[in-house]
Amino acid sequence: MKPQKAAFAEPLALACGITLPAFELAYETYGELNADRSNAVLVPHALNASHHVAGVYADAPGDVGWWDNMIGPGKPLDTNRFFVVGVNNLGGCHGSTGPMSANPATGKPWGGDFPVVTVEDWVQAQARLADRLGIDKFAAVMGGSLGAMQALQWTLSFPERIRHSIVIAAAPKLSAQNIAFNEVARQAITTDPEFHGGHYYEHGVVPRSGLRLARMLGHITYLSDDAMMEKFGRTLRSGALGFNFDIDFEIESYLRYQGDKFSTYFDANTYLRITKALDYFDPAAAFGGDLSAAMARAQAAFLVISFTSDWRFAPSRSREIVRALLDNRRVVSYLEIDAPHGHDAFLMEDERYMNAVRAYFGNIEL
Amino acid sequence: MKPQKAAFAEPLALACGITLPAFELAYETYGELNADRSNAVLVPHALNASHHVAGVYADAPGDVGWWDNMIGPGKPLDTNRFFVVGVNNLGGCHGSTGPMSANPATGKPWGGDFPVVTVEDWVQAQARLADRLGIDKFAAVMGGSLGAMQALQWTLSFPERIRHSIVIAAAPKLSAQNIAFNEVARQAITTDPEFHGGHYYEHGVVPRSGLRLARMLGHITYLSDDAMMEKFGRTLRSGALGFNFDIDFEIESYLRYQGDKFSTYFDANTYLRITKALDYFDPAAAFGGDLSAAMARAQAAFLVISFTSDWRFAPSRSREIVRALLDNRRVVSYLEIDAPHGHDAFLMEDERYMNAVRAYFGNIEL
Repeated sequence: MKPQKAAFAEPLALACGITLPAFELAYETYGELNADRSNAVLVPHALNASHHVAGVYADAPGDVGWWDNMIGPGKPLDTNRFFVVGVNNLGGCHGSTGPMSANPATGKPWGGDFPVVTVEDWVQAQARLADRLGIDKFAAVMGGSLGAMQALQWTLSFPERIRHSIVIAAAPKLSAQNIAFNEVARQAITTDPEFHGGHYYEHGVVPRSGLRLARMLGHITYLSDDAMMEKFGRTLRSGALGFNFDIDFEIESYLRYQGDKFSTYFDANTYLRITKALDYFDPAAAFGGDLSAAMARAQAAFLVISFTSDWRFAPSRSREIVRALLDNRRVVSYLEIDAPHGHDAFLMEDERYMNAVRAYFGNIEL
Repeated sequence: MKPQKAAFAEPLALACGITLPAFELAYETYGELNADRSNAVLVPHALNASHHVAGVYADAPGDVGWWDNMIGPGKPLDTNRFFVVGVNNLGGCHGSTGPMSANPATGKPWGGDFPVVTVEDWVQAQARLADRLGIDKFAAVMGGSLGAMQALQWTLSFPERIRHSIVIAAAPKLSAQNIAFNEVARQAITTDPEFHGGHYYEHGVVPRSGLRLARMLGHITYLSDDAMMEKFGRTLRSGALGFNFDIDFEIESYLRYQGDKFSTYFDANTYLRITKALDYFDPAAAFGGDLSAAMARAQAAFLVISFTSDWRFAPSRSREIVRALLDNRRVVSYLEIDAPHGHDAFLMEDERYMNAVRAYFGNIEL
């Protein structure tokens, strides 16, 4: 695997009203585009992932792609048959143009001035990449969570360019509770004294405490109560209560570790923007809240998958999407998997889940 | 209503191993203790409340007690018939000895040196207050959430001093997820640069950002997803998306307001300790995790109430308590109320809930 970059000189008008004069996207491809250019599959990423979807880099064999159990030679999304494209989102921190990039107007990093981008913006940018790669029509777009929202949006922004949309662990819009968790995460970052209105790069600091808290909180919502209890229970790290505010329970140790790790490699400005993209996503809004009306544009066939223990985007949220598709007599398969892991189930090994995706791709004609 | 204080000169040995040389408890009473001293009801408080359980102060008519819909003349817990005692917990910030009190060893506020107190410690301190008030045996102890854990613990620490225990919206111990939320709240406070290891009073500052985040997060867990959606939905505060990090949605405005308000009146050191008391509560731990064995000591009759939409302490957690009591052939009534509000339902007006509590107290003989 080797990450690549594509630079786009044509301005991109964003939903916020700002126009990016130019931008770059970091991406990776797996497998070969066939002569018909009919075997391309786009895999947008969720909150904290990147274009590095599968495989390893020659110089970093430990850095395995985030969906490597799903994508690769002989895997459910088989790269012997399909040409897979992973892409880092606009506003990201893994190589695509984002808050850490230079603002052409100042020559300094955009920082807090980088626009608030949306799922629609991401899809527009990804379409430019598709053009560049010579892909008129994707065989499929597949994503989980926020990635699934992009898979959904593709069928609305470019209905004629998507044959199949695979929408996993998604919701057609965030609930008030979903937004609330995002808002606490954002407030943790923006009230960190090192945030400096997003211009922390200039100060040589990072709002690490805030980003760490945001990640700790996020992790709670990715796991089910039962899965957490199964994995950590009330196990004490040192065998006895400490009667202080150090780590007592294993779950505390886990969260602190995850928060610490994340805060060393992820950009806080990107985190803020990704949570806003989640909050803003609501394709039905332009149709008075009528999701069925919104989905009328879609032409793709759909595979929708949810997980019973996912309380972030519960199966009922996926069923809203399915219902809207059925209202439009679209071709849709729906799978509700009885999995214990919570929202993170979409990233995990589950035979029924993997087999379903494998079977679905097996039936896509090239 | 008038708050009172009781000072106790006899040392109190705490679960952590530290002995408090002396302490004070702030409390309030409602109604009259009868000649038999048989009509006393103790009402311990939950996370952010106090001894001000019901009624108003003459000089602050807007400061209504936190359970005023439940307790008062003619109310479900009728103070025309019962003598109700509200008490601020040890380690609190509403008048009882706590982190803001002077440490006798230094003459300065305890701050970060105030011990980590437990539910058992609170019950021990409350027993001293009962002695002082001449109450050998309470007709009942009633609490919701963390208050319910104290109502439960009373039946274990002083089985012969409690006739009825009313345990509302409780759990016999926190789950890993419950602890996880508490830990994020604590980390928000302790990593606030104004925290100074809990000795912020000396620096003339308050870890307001951290406390604010803790409260925002807490609020999410007090409400159900559905109740939040019903109350706030995705309503925009100004009618349009802002494409910045100011308030877009009403739910964000609500959380920020609640966090701001709380951070001006509550003490962060107390918040830390109350969350630890929650985490540590686990009466079954000393019995190898066997709650039935732990509950064998209890002699009281129980009323256990849960609310269907409470995901912080779901009905299944209350049923664990009921099962342990039934295993011991204790007298127990269990009520699972189909209420939409989430954990906060225990503080709300619900006719079935109020009537059940009213009926239960009506049947308590004096």
